[in-house]
Amino acid sequence: MTTIQSLQTDYFLVPLETVLSDSTHGTIPHFELVTVRVVDSDGAEGMGYTYAVNSGARAFHALIEDYLKPVVIGQDPDQVEKIWQDMWWAVHYSGRGGHATSAISAVDIALWDLRGRKAELPLWRLFGGYDPKVPVYAGGIDLDFTIPELLEQADRFQEQGYRAIKMKAGRANLREDVDRVRSMREHLGDDFPLMVDANMKWSADQAIRAARALEEFNLLWIEEPTIPDDVAGHVRVVREGRTPVATGENLHTLYEFHTLMAAGGLTYPEPDVTNCGGMTTFRKIGALAEAHNLPLTSHGAHDLTVHLLAAAPNRTYMESHGFSLDRYLAHPMEIVDGYTMAPERPGHGIELDWDALEAHRR
Amino acid sequence: MTTIQSLQTDYFLVPLETVLSDSTHGTIPHFELVTVRVVDSDGAEGMGYTYAVNSGARAFHALIEDYLKPVVIGQDPDQVEKIWQDMWWAVHYSGRGGHATSAISAVDIALWDLRGRKAELPLWRLFGGYDPKVPVYAGGIDLDFTIPELLEQADRFQEQGYRAIKMKAGRANLREDVDRVRSMREHLGDDFPLMVDANMKWSADQAIRAARALEEFNLLWIEEPTIPDDVAGHVRVVREGRTPVATGENLHTLYEFHTLMAAGGLTYPEPDVTNCGGMTTFRKIGALAEAHNLPLTSHGAHDLTVHLLAAAPNRTYMESHGFSLDRYLAHPMEIVDGYTMAPERPGHGIELDWDALEAHRR
Repeated sequence: MTTIQSLQTDYFLVPLETVLSDSTHGTIPHFELVTVRVVDSDGAEGMGYTYAVNSGARAFHALIEDYLKPVVIGQDPDQVEKIWQDMWWAVHYSGRGGHATSAISAVDIALWDLRGRKAELPLWRLFGGYDPKVPVYAGGIDLDFTIPELLEQADRFQEQGYRAIKMKAGRANLREDVDRVRSMREHLGDDFPLMVDANMKWSADQAIRAARALEEFNLLWIEEPTIPDDVAGHVRVVREGRTPVATGENLHTLYEFHTLMAAGGLTYPEPDVTNCGGMTTFRKIGALAEAHNLPLTSHGAHDLTVHLLAAAPNRTYMESHGFSLDRYLAHPMEIVDGYTMAPERPGHGIELDWDALEAHRR
Repeated sequence: MTTIQSLQTDYFLVPLETVLSDSTHGTIPHFELVTVRVVDSDGAEGMGYTYAVNSGARAFHALIEDYLKPVVIGQDPDQVEKIWQDMWWAVHYSGRGGHATSAISAVDIALWDLRGRKAELPLWRLFGGYDPKVPVYAGGIDLDFTIPELLEQADRFQEQGYRAIKMKAGRANLREDVDRVRSMREHLGDDFPLMVDANMKWSADQAIRAARALEEFNLLWIEEPTIPDDVAGHVRVVREGRTPVATGENLHTLYEFHTLMAAGGLTYPEPDVTNCGGMTTFRKIGALAEAHNLPLTSHGAHDLTVHLLAAAPNRTYMESHGFSLDRYLAHPMEIVDGYTMAPERPGHGIELDWDALEAHRR
């Protein structure tokens, strides 16, 4: 039987080209990256990664190195679902989401990459493809930009091929948010898909007030209006705010997505494949969304996510995230007239420039 | 202004005197212990700890050392609530429960200990005491014991002063569970408080079937009948199983307790102070339970928890946990006729034998 022979995990602190900011995480000069490389007894390889905003990835690394690696070594690489369950239960006590799922995600992604490479299939085909042409939106991390900077960024996004843009909200004063969204709407035209992301800044009541104040601008969605723990609040924002709600980057289990969807508090599920439990869980969340008649979007890690949305019949816009690994990729994502094509390279098809990353090893 | 000057965190792998077992964690030869020691600018000290079953505590240690410590140093030790919120948001991305709350718990406990010592008050008094005489039950970790071993253990517990006992359930065959509970009930007498703990072994339907099969034995509660993520399942077990349900050792946020309580899926909330967010969160969960007209029990770390239940008007039996630190304590808990007294020593009053623990540092 083919078995997994080795697992290597590494930690990098990757500087951002531009210091970013949002309403929750303040200024963000860098992000933490944890990679996983697995090799099986046939010599086949797979690579996965997870990342964190500002903090937490040392815990991912410890979880992978000390607790997940012993679970994974020696297992049949085709039995990803079994390995996933074994990992889940190995770190369940004091885990059950949170940092545990990011650690599991990185390993799960590496296992799927290995399977795709062995099958000589890109993951979107291995998953049973739907459509490799995936609509993309640009996720601006721009809460502290001036309005002219916002509009310049919007122009730049359009020059890069984007035909949908998300901007941050959650300024100290709602009037500022309204002014910023109005400027963007006027700049982009009435029909341009525009979303707003509050990064959990508001209470449910504040979010309802904001949604109504922004109603005339016809937003595609308001993202993370409040903390993801507030299920009843999300239901109210959807109904009383009269605006679709996206959330998911801070939901870390299939169950958390289920709770919000079943309650009617979530319009656009946006799992992050690097912290929801990996490709295994992302696909389950996609099926759950389909069962709830909801469109599936995403957060972060677009180079991985493109395969998942290319295999999902209910997929809508994929986020192109500000924490880009482009500088370290042999094949950065290309966007043409609002779409990107899932690659035909085997596995996820990401080739990281390990030499360039080496400078950021910590 | 007095500020926190230093924070030291240490990791120990503590062997158990007896290898234990339950339906989820298999055989348990040791537990992981992470301690936190804080010192403020007046030279006052506080100690906290958290622990894990089998796995995960290396992540607690990384979270505390790399991400929480920088948040805590320099803060006013009296503003525990502010420090708690700062810690929560410092590790929120990919945290929001899970390993993050265990790490926060250890620091929070150290901060409360420091406050109690400075005020020269035991914590139960600092919290505004209710009753220092706290009923205790013995939590057997005994799924693999034979029936004679179970009964011998029950005799031993009673000799030690216990007047309430919890036993494990979740054997391969429900008939075995029924036989074991029947033997215990006959041995202990009709009115002896007896609980059963399934450690999430069952589906909701299996749990309902088990609860009905065990109904004649008049159990005080069934604990963790199924995974804590299954809110609707818990509601069904309470109603259709016709037996009170305890859960909480795997709930890691105030919100998770709220969701289960508000849904009617939880009779006996049993937070663990070392993984729910510390004393700050435990007290909030206690208030939430009171608002829901529910009795408050506990999981683990009885030497800490005694202060919390001694200050809670809705407190019921406190668990005396199998992962005992007794061998390393200057003042192990004493039980007389089913009760223990919250100590009058300042803070939590735990004095760890650091020299003896040193052999288990990893």
